Amino acid sequence: MKTAKAAVMPDFHQPLEIREFSLPEKIEPGAALVKIEMAGICGTDVHLWKGQLPIPRPIIMGHETVGVIERIGKGLETDWTGVPLRAGDRITWSAGMLCGHCYHCTVIRQPTRCLNRNAYGISFNCDDKPHFSGGYAEYIYLRPRTAIFKLTDVTPEAITGAGCALVTAIHGLERMGISWGDKVIIQGSGPVGLAALTVAKSSGASTIIVIGGPAARLQLAQDFGADYTINIEESADSTARLDQVKRLTGGYGADVVIECVGFPSVVPEGFEMCRDGGKYLVLGHYGDAGSTPINPHVITRKQLTVYGSWASEPRHMAAAIDFLRKQGDRFPFDRLVSHRFPLEQANEALQTTAHWISGKSVIVP
Amino acid sequence: MKTAKAAVMPDFHQPLEIREFSLPEKIEPGAALVKIEMAGICGTDVHLWKGQLPIPRPIIMGHETVGVIERIGKGLETDWTGVPLRAGDRITWSAGMLCGHCYHCTVIRQPTRCLNRNAYGISFNCDDKPHFSGGYAEYIYLRPRTAIFKLTDVTPEAITGAGCALVTAIHGLERMGISWGDKVIIQGSGPVGLAALTVAKSSGASTIIVIGGPAARLQLAQDFGADYTINIEESADSTARLDQVKRLTGGYGADVVIECVGFPSVVPEGFEMCRDGGKYLVLGHYGDAGSTPINPHVITRKQLTVYGSWASEPRHMAAAIDFLRKQGDRFPFDRLVSHRFPLEQANEALQTTAHWISGKSVIVP
Amino acid sequence: MKTAKAAVMPDFHQPLEIREFSLPEKIEPGAALVKIEMAGICGTDVHLWKGQLPIPRPIIMGHETVGVIERIGKGLETDWTGVPLRAGDRITWSAGMLCGHCYHCTVIRQPTRCLNRNAYGISFNCDDKPHFSGGYAEYIYLRPRTAIFKLTDVTPEAITGAGCALVTAIHGLERMGISWGDKVIIQGSGPVGLAALTVAKSSGASTIIVIGGPAARLQLAQDFGADYTINIEESADSTARLDQVKRLTGGYGADVVIECVGFPSVVPEGFEMCRDGGKYLVLGHYGDAGSTPINPHVITRKQLTVYGSWASEPRHMAAAIDFLRKQGDRFPFDRLVSHRFPLEQANEALQTTAHWISGKSVIVP
Amino acid sequence: MKTAKAAVMPDFHQPLEIREFSLPEKIEPGAALVKIEMAGICGTDVHLWKGQLPIPRPIIMGHETVGVIERIGKGLETDWTGVPLRAGDRITWSAGMLCGHCYHCTVIRQPTRCLNRNAYGISFNCDDKPHFSGGYAEYIYLRPRTAIFKLTDVTPEAITGAGCALVTAIHGLERMGISWGDKVIIQGSGPVGLAALTVAKSSGASTIIVIGGPAARLQLAQDFGADYTINIEESADSTARLDQVKRLTGGYGADVVIECVGFPSVVPEGFEMCRDGGKYLVLGHYGDAGSTPINPHVITRKQLTVYGSWASEPRHMAAAIDFLRKQGDRFPFDRLVSHRFPLEQANEALQTTAHWISGKSVIVP
Repeated sequence: MKTAKAAVMPDFHQPLEIREFSLPEKIEPGAALVKIEMAGICGTDVHLWKGQLPIPRPIIMGHETVGVIERIGKGLETDWTGVPLRAGDRITWSAGMLCGHCYHCTVIRQPTRCLNRNAYGISFNCDDKPHFSGGYAEYIYLRPRTAIFKLTDVTPEAITGAGCALVTAIHGLERMGISWGDKVIIQGSGPVGLAALTVAKSSGASTIIVIGGPAARLQLAQDFGADYTINIEESADSTARLDQVKRLTGGYGADVVIECVGFPSVVPEGFEMCRDGGKYLVLGHYGDAGSTPINPHVITRKQLTVYGSWASEPRHMAAAIDFLRKQGDRFPFDRLVSHRFPLEQANEALQTTAHWISGKSVIVP
Repeated sequence: MKTAKAAVMPDFHQPLEIREFSLPEKIEPGAALVKIEMAGICGTDVHLWKGQLPIPRPIIMGHETVGVIERIGKGLETDWTGVPLRAGDRITWSAGMLCGHCYHCTVIRQPTRCLNRNAYGISFNCDDKPHFSGGYAEYIYLRPRTAIFKLTDVTPEAITGAGCALVTAIHGLERMGISWGDKVIIQGSGPVGLAALTVAKSSGASTIIVIGGPAARLQLAQDFGADYTINIEESADSTARLDQVKRLTGGYGADVVIECVGFPSVVPEGFEMCRDGGKYLVLGHYGDAGSTPINPHVITRKQLTVYGSWASEPRHMAAAIDFLRKQGDRFPFDRLVSHRFPLEQANEALQTTAHWISGKSVIVP
Repeated sequence: MKTAKAAVMPDFHQPLEIREFSLPEKIEPGAALVKIEMAGICGTDVHLWKGQLPIPRPIIMGHETVGVIERIGKGLETDWTGVPLRAGDRITWSAGMLCGHCYHCTVIRQPTRCLNRNAYGISFNCDDKPHFSGGYAEYIYLRPRTAIFKLTDVTPEAITGAGCALVTAIHGLERMGISWGDKVIIQGSGPVGLAALTVAKSSGASTIIVIGGPAARLQLAQDFGADYTINIEESADSTARLDQVKRLTGGYGADVVIECVGFPSVVPEGFEMCRDGGKYLVLGHYGDAGSTPINPHVITRKQLTVYGSWASEPRHMAAAIDFLRKQGDRFPFDRLVSHRFPLEQANEALQTTAHWISGKSVIVP
Repeated sequence: MKTAKAAVMPDFHQPLEIREFSLPEKIEPGAALVKIEMAGICGTDVHLWKGQLPIPRPIIMGHETVGVIERIGKGLETDWTGVPLRAGDRITWSAGMLCGHCYHCTVIRQPTRCLNRNAYGISFNCDDKPHFSGGYAEYIYLRPRTAIFKLTDVTPEAITGAGCALVTAIHGLERMGISWGDKVIIQGSGPVGLAALTVAKSSGASTIIVIGGPAARLQLAQDFGADYTINIEESADSTARLDQVKRLTGGYGADVVIECVGFPSVVPEGFEMCRDGGKYLVLGHYGDAGSTPINPHVITRKQLTVYGSWASEPRHMAAAIDFLRKQGDRFPFDRLVSHRFPLEQANEALQTTAHWISGKSVIVP
């Protein structure tokens, strides 16, 4: 029986270990066995490693992955968009699987909150068969109904460089809606902030101000189309930042403010940056970072609308791949991939991300 | 020169005093001199009296008023909806006047935040001519472009009983949107809560739960169509209330939660009462009651949308009057008028409202 | 082997015949065998009989059905809303079955246009097992994933009286959106028109005008809450009707016009009945009745928005049942059931509907 | 008393004549006298000349104009966006003036249908003072409350090249809404089609197909970002065009189809080009070109939404100028200006436009 290697997290806070599991001998109808080419390390993986979400252990993490189909199950004849699929094709896939039949999928139509949701790299104990359900490994076994996408004219670097930040931003901005001509402020210049910048820019935002740091990331923001950047190291005072954005938005504040930081205290500051009747998107709080004092009167008086958005659906992945293919020159996400590690150094890859050393770290098994 | 009396607030926290002012001798084109029949005391008047908003003094308060046209300016031939208007007609009017030309009126279309907004009973120093610009008086002088509405088949009690709570609720629920069949929770059973109840009920809400007190107001909520009420005196624990509303909403929480309390701490509790992807309307925070700890992660994870709404436009008043006329039997707002005072007891009227003694206090000059 | 009877349509335009089929011996997991109590005859059945849609033959028609579970498959433990389900329960179900996974279900989220859609009474050849897939029969076999609803405090008459007209109206008005306070015109007083009336009325429409006939149906419209009715027999001239509705809507036309007739020529007339910026819903054109001259300039100049809506989803059925349960007194759909036939007279039942003799005909097997 | 020249249309179908009128001696508060630099000839002017809209005569046409302030009225201290304004500034302005107070402006919020709307170049008899109310002249007198925009870093060619086509497209696409990632078909490659293309492209459309001709205009469409073009001269058959667009949109049709042709028969063809649940914008029917057979069943079955949009508001002009300033390199509207005429040849300018000879003709007085 053939085996393959994976980097396994035995428990929270434990170093990843290389373990060997037997590969499945039989591929179910609709499933596929995929040889992994590149697996992105997401900031969420760091949160998982720290135990901030209740996941099974031991686990193979990794939910931003590109690979090549090695064996393909019966009936899996096309990818999620209808493109023919066969062994040898380079693919990526939506980490999250939706049931399509629960209350959240069908009644309230919030499929990202599917009651039966499972996600590769997050939901599966790797001691259970088929073992390979995360990206930090030589192989992954894609279950039936996984939303698979054949990759043509898009590099693994573009896919992992964009990572789940891009689909998260696409979903969030869809929920909130950007109007053509909007003045937009983005709080944060990390992966989610940059991804939100590209979606806002390509949605017709007339002015985009990115508030963040350090300087290198703000340079990247400008390369990606930011009209103005505010370095929080230079403009450390909230009042000063407010004055700046008011001045840059004609005195009224921004039509739209997008939070991509993850620190609760930026939220009330962001409310002040909105014009009356403006919109605010809480996009950076995937993790629970606790509470902050917020004054509800501000929401009433300014007639704000505040949006939340969780994860993404397969259709957002389809849109993301199309976007990377067509607008990769304008928004070169592949340039974000700064560090590459073999599978044996998965631990180092994770720590590089944890310590904000890399633009984007990837594992190349 | 003819004079008339008004109850004047000399300054914050000072008892109202009866003063006499000269009535205008000439009525401008488009203006009207109105003899007041009934003036409602709004909870906001209490906030004004306490100095919680920066208004001019001395002032004649009163922004929920019904009167009869005594003299009518040239060119004022119809009311705001096109109905012919003449001396002797009973009318009410929108307290707030919008310019129709500023950035907020025309570009971002948030006219309730009109940069040139003035409101009867709130914005005018009564030492300045034409003196009579508030409801606590024998007369009021309505400036040109005031949105006037002729009253037919609607009593002054219905108009003042509904007061600005109803137009506030109409505007707020318009901003948020209620879907036919929604399960709705209303936090608060005061005037705004009851008004929100009537709008939600008549918008097709399938289930409405009102959380508030005391028992008499909850009884009123049931008379107005609440399916369930939760008495906060009996169910003083947040966890218990959450359990109750989860149970009453099929385990998922409400589609819509409407805050009509004005205490900041009810907001995070209300977030928990929403289903995933649900909507939350901050409607009760007209006054600034400070901050409360709120966790932005909840907004993200539950995919909430949170709405704010400020005051109302004349078109909401038009809709409110139509509603009172047609559905007054179903929603008997006139029954809320519990205390009547002559102008000389305006002070007592204000204090009765301040101490929550009355359903609704009105001045009958 | 046990058998049961069904009224079968051998081919288009052929009289229905009573045939006997063997009942399934085994109930799959998730499926149910249901003894039929009442089956509604829908106007669409007449269109099917006339060959206006390409359906398989022979077929058992009937897509508005109530029955009692006789045998229940393993795993079918709750209805679609989570209510426990067992043999002996009275139920109804969504005729249409959605896959939850195709392009229309997941990408563009138009599940009523599901690419794998099947509907009881419409899609299944009754020569194929399990034979019983329509309502005109003693039994029906409900396949796994059918959206079943347990009926409590709702009569079979209310369910079949509302029929698929109510869920169609709920879906259509959801797509278009009714704003609280809207002035609404409904073209047509048949089942769809009356259903649209109830949804519009309970959504907060301030004024509803129903245009149709004959007098008895307009009386029903008034009983269901129409503010005004216009009898097309008395007001046969389009210009006269336009004058009437303009007068009843303050001179500007209606905010919303809902087409529930199915004759193409009413559409351009309805455009003229809309106010500028108004909305028009084409709801009555489930069948293809051909083209009519329409002037696109009217859509531009009046800034209209025109909506189409097809069939309904299970969540609309859930909402409909809740509505019938709670507002059955206000909107007594059960009163529409005017003619009852035994299964042997299914043919007569169909012809009574075809010739507009009945309010609603039902089969009671 | 000083005089100036204008090209006057004496009556429908009559050649324009140069006439001289006295310039106003006094400039009202809020008004301005402007020396015209460039005036665009709009296709609508041709329709006006042909008598297709009931306008006063004699008239000075011209509603797309750039000029320099010569004398400025008291109180006119800033432009519509708050930028300081003084004599010598180059400006443009919204041709249409809205009252901000009528039913259409305030109740139903459709200000482009303002009941008191007037437009320069369309609504004013030039025999009446102040005579100069259109662009085909040496001067124009801008009344108080005209929405004036100071031009910085935008050429007169860009403003007139974009003309009212761009603001019309901005308004239309705002009404309909483009979603990021939408597949868009544009019917027509004239000025409105190209303008719609730029707005759709910059709103995040993933694929844009332009159907039109001749080849030179399709080349321009490609320069402006069209992904595919279909030449109606080569693909003259409706079925062939449908096949092509289905193929280019993955087999399902487009998410959005925008009509920019003005021939009624393209509308039903466009409906077929929409995917199920898709959107259709009737944008090219500013003139009344009569009716065409349309099948309402298609709207129902495909669940289409069809939008109309009329003219534009000042805020759209503000957005257009900002767009031309920032994205003029990507969308070089100035290149459309192909023919220049002195005022004396206004007649020739009009005829060049009438006979589709020019990209865009302008008068340079």
